[in-house]
Amino acid sequence: MAVFIVGPVSAQTATPPQTGPAAITEDFKPSSVNQPGQQYPQVNSQGYARFHIVAPDAQNVKVSLGLGGRGGTTLTKASDGTWSGTTEGPMDEGFHYYHLTVDGGTFNDPGALNFYGSTRWESGIEIPAHDADFYALKDVPHGNVQQVLFASLSTSAQRRAFVYTPPGYDKNQGMRYPVLYLQHGWGEDETAWSNQGHANLIMDNLIADGKVRPFIIVMTYGMTNEVRPGGLASFDIKPFQTVLVNELIPYIDGHFRTLADQPHRAMAGLSMGGFETKLVTLANVDKFAYIGLLSGGTLSVEDVDKTPGFRDKVKLAFVSFGSRELEGGRGGPPGGPRQDPRANAEALKKSGFNSVFYVSPNTAHEFLTWRRSLREMAPLLFKD
Amino acid sequence: MAVFIVGPVSAQTATPPQTGPAAITEDFKPSSVNQPGQQYPQVNSQGYARFHIVAPDAQNVKVSLGLGGRGGTTLTKASDGTWSGTTEGPMDEGFHYYHLTVDGGTFNDPGALNFYGSTRWESGIEIPAHDADFYALKDVPHGNVQQVLFASLSTSAQRRAFVYTPPGYDKNQGMRYPVLYLQHGWGEDETAWSNQGHANLIMDNLIADGKVRPFIIVMTYGMTNEVRPGGLASFDIKPFQTVLVNELIPYIDGHFRTLADQPHRAMAGLSMGGFETKLVTLANVDKFAYIGLLSGGTLSVEDVDKTPGFRDKVKLAFVSFGSRELEGGRGGPPGGPRQDPRANAEALKKSGFNSVFYVSPNTAHEFLTWRRSLREMAPLLFKD
Repeated sequence: MAVFIVGPVSAQTATPPQTGPAAITEDFKPSSVNQPGQQYPQVNSQGYARFHIVAPDAQNVKVSLGLGGRGGTTLTKASDGTWSGTTEGPMDEGFHYYHLTVDGGTFNDPGALNFYGSTRWESGIEIPAHDADFYALKDVPHGNVQQVLFASLSTSAQRRAFVYTPPGYDKNQGMRYPVLYLQHGWGEDETAWSNQGHANLIMDNLIADGKVRPFIIVMTYGMTNEVRPGGLASFDIKPFQTVLVNELIPYIDGHFRTLADQPHRAMAGLSMGGFETKLVTLANVDKFAYIGLLSGGTLSVEDVDKTPGFRDKVKLAFVSFGSRELEGGRGGPPGGPRQDPRANAEALKKSGFNSVFYVSPNTAHEFLTWRRSLREMAPLLFKD
Repeated sequence: MAVFIVGPVSAQTATPPQTGPAAITEDFKPSSVNQPGQQYPQVNSQGYARFHIVAPDAQNVKVSLGLGGRGGTTLTKASDGTWSGTTEGPMDEGFHYYHLTVDGGTFNDPGALNFYGSTRWESGIEIPAHDADFYALKDVPHGNVQQVLFASLSTSAQRRAFVYTPPGYDKNQGMRYPVLYLQHGWGEDETAWSNQGHANLIMDNLIADGKVRPFIIVMTYGMTNEVRPGGLASFDIKPFQTVLVNELIPYIDGHFRTLADQPHRAMAGLSMGGFETKLVTLANVDKFAYIGLLSGGTLSVEDVDKTPGFRDKVKLAFVSFGSRELEGGRGGPPGGPRQDPRANAEALKKSGFNSVFYVSPNTAHEFLTWRRSLREMAPLLFKD
């Protein structure tokens, strides 16, 4: 059984003060994902987040970010009618979803950009990571992210996907490229990997550094969000598998210069997208040669050996988690993984399969874990 | 002098009841631009909009949409802590920006998708238009909209543009395409024309109907939003003109299969984007052969005759407005156009120049005017 949580890709809790209140460094700056010109929310060099909301007649204003178990961060009202507050401790580095509760209603922070998570467009904040350079927008050749609309007979709909084509795709008319199908998590959609994931910038930078073979990335909606938390038992992979395997892959192979064969096709996903990846790839070893489960389960020797052709055809199983998920503590799946994914990965490797296990330091079930996982996984793909 | 308003592309006012309160038809349905699964806001067949907000402890909740001059629509609180209200009259057909005021603070409606306008991500609502079919997502071949990131030396930045490539662009490797540079209005950005404008769907449908020559559309940020309402006198076109003409056009011609010459290049814009279009094209008649000003000013015989080469090189001046803008009344520029753009267009035509004037029926300074304007203008472009 896959190990992951069907539930909101949740706001990360702040680290509680260890030994009494620490001094807060007053070097707060606007978050990098604020709306144009907005001064708040702000973040300081220690990772504290500070909020500032105008709502002069409000009775109470809270922010979902902060000490989650204790209800986030409660703002206090100043005499000018504005509400302010700072997280009780520093936040984990990276991207966090959050929202406001204003007089009992759920609203977004008007200062922050919105990102689709928890089945709604949520506010986002970025705590600068010490290694943020790998997903920074730099003066290197850039690939494009394009919206494609494709007809899906099985769902009687025009469906959307985003396709990353690497720099040089337009110039190298004779070149064909491998393809990674990359899935979001529960509560998210096909916008997640390029918006909050920066998959395009991660690839641009890896390619500029000569660290990966350029490939195409395809991101579509995994039809995950009909599943309510706890209702995973009722999730049926077939409708999405049909869209992906029977409709989207032929569309992509028909409209982009792909290498349209199993050795040049990978699938990976985060959280519930990892769960989907495992189901789809185990059922289609003739279609995918590389598998990535990012905070989205584990692959055991038993999984592999009960799947005919797997050891012959599949070239890599990449499994990753944020370190806090493996602690079994805050931020990770409640109770921690039911199987030990590291032990599974090591046993698989010992059995002679190309199994790679990666742990993102000091991150939880959040996007910095997955940005880093993509950075680690991408160089391992399509090594033929 | 150009005639347009530098100011928010504003929420449209509702039509006041003419002869006492009309009966409201209770056939409300969720707006087509709601967030996934959200039941409110709703719209009925008469064009009334109804709102429903959860904020049990709030003191007052208002919606900016409705009878603008009287402060929008004030919601009333039910015993269950929810707030509801319906616009006093039917709204104009098409897309409207709006926001909530909750206890004196500005927030978005958690039920609605957000769109960048008024220099913030605003809530949006769609009043179904009787002619909505021309921008509907249909089962026709679709072009793609892709994000490109280009280096701008003049602004020391990596800048973003969105590029629409028509259906077949990937297949017809031997074909080159004309290009329309298409600008948003003040308060908006490069996302507007594909998000709320549906430029891609309008083109897909026109192409499917054989009504236009397929062309590429390029949409980038017009650097308009440093201008505060009323501060137009201080607006300098040069920084944007440098980015567009010296940096973006060469990038596009270098990375897409364009017909990279004056006869195959057009520029158009809405509102302040029309103002920019006029300034840029009059200063670059060797670069652009087609000009479109959508609710963004007027082109006079004097403008044309003082511009060397204009009559020889420029093939079309397309000028459009929403009918309510020309009424000089609500929704349009305060006081109405200072020059009569229809008279200017007719004089220009009479002088022997290919001048086309279009009026969108029953719309104001809003996106249905501009969707229709694109539909009318596109078939006139690149007729060589």
